[in-house]
Amino acid sequence: MKGRMINEGPPRTFVVVFDKGDEVIQGLLRFAEEHDLTASELTGLGAFSSCVLGYFDWERKDYNRIRIDEQVEVLAFIGNITTKDGKHKLHPHVVVGKSDGTAHGAHLLEAQVRPTLEVVINESPRHLERREDPETGLPLIAL
Amino acid sequence: MKGRMINEGPPRTFVVVFDKGDEVIQGLLRFAEEHDLTASELTGLGAFSSCVLGYFDWERKDYNRIRIDEQVEVLAFIGNITTKDGKHKLHPHVVVGKSDGTAHGAHLLEAQVRPTLEVVINESPRHLERREDPETGLPLIAL
Amino acid sequence: MKGRMINEGPPRTFVVVFDKGDEVIQGLLRFAEEHDLTASELTGLGAFSSCVLGYFDWERKDYNRIRIDEQVEVLAFIGNITTKDGKHKLHPHVVVGKSDGTAHGAHLLEAQVRPTLEVVINESPRHLERREDPETGLPLIAL
Repeated sequence: MKGRMINEGPPRTFVVVFDKGDEVIQGLLRFAEEHDLTASELTGLGAFSSCVLGYFDWERKDYNRIRIDEQVEVLAFIGNITTKDGKHKLHPHVVVGKSDGTAHGAHLLEAQVRPTLEVVINESPRHLERREDPETGLPLIAL
Repeated sequence: MKGRMINEGPPRTFVVVFDKGDEVIQGLLRFAEEHDLTASELTGLGAFSSCVLGYFDWERKDYNRIRIDEQVEVLAFIGNITTKDGKHKLHPHVVVGKSDGTAHGAHLLEAQVRPTLEVVINESPRHLERREDPETGLPLIAL
Repeated sequence: MKGRMINEGPPRTFVVVFDKGDEVIQGLLRFAEEHDLTASELTGLGAFSSCVLGYFDWERKDYNRIRIDEQVEVLAFIGNITTKDGKHKLHPHVVVGKSDGTAHGAHLLEAQVRPTLEVVINESPRHLERREDPETGLPLIAL
């Protein structure tokens, strides 16, 4: 995984390119910490060799894990970076495409890149803070 | 629904966060009017408790309504804000994910948020105007 | 197809609107050349009368072509523009929705617009260069 700033902004714009075998979620969080990113949105595309999606089950108030153990195209990787209790927080959703062209997706819990994932991050110079929602236990953005 | 400017721009960037039970389309239009948004693009993610999709039937020249009455993840909410005859106009498409991980989508006609929808709006300082297309009756962007 | 700059930036922002019958990939490449775009990301929505998707088959190291010969909504068109050996290079992925609301997608190889495709391009003032990956033959971004 490598990253580079391509616009000094504001908004600051970064490109992050993942290589074969890289894990996405930990990589992006590490990048956010290293560059101390404030409120940021990201979009990306590429491909995964495998991934785990999370569908939030409203009854259980927890994520159902949906494992996809095959090569998929990453069609739309949409997310944001905020903070919670001073730590960077990534909220990543994804749409992937299987070999028959059908699309699948949910919250992205884990993903292994193959051969590439190209992510553009646009950072605005304000902080957005998340707080735990009492009903769901989810960290929601508090404006 | 709450919104906040996070970059003074241009482009001006806003974050709009919807709460449980909020309706999306009317909420975004109201936000566009209150801030008198010029040409804007938006991306979002979150979840709906229910929504109505619209597939434009080329033969009938009208939208087929596809009702989804279950909790879905909002994987990619992509849209733009323009004007038509001086009024703000929202063009919203969406991809949602069901509990089995399958993805579905179309034009977004209605949506109830649960528990959150996080939308980033980037506004450019020009107006884009729509005009009715004689063939389809749809309001298309006129450059 | 018509395009217009709506923010002088950086980032420079362009809107490109395709008309009925326009082909997308060649149109965007021509636009990139005419405006000599540096590193750019794009998002779009609209509809196609037909398109050809490409799923990269990891065993064959080539794209399987998936032809969709029906009117589909373009739910999320996500891509970027870079350069390779001094020439502009478009990397376009797409999610489309069929009349039953199911979503499909992959790399976008060809597409005919009907009635419109609305694309927003954000350009950062740096070049991003692609180089051929020896393992796959794919042009990957070299940072």
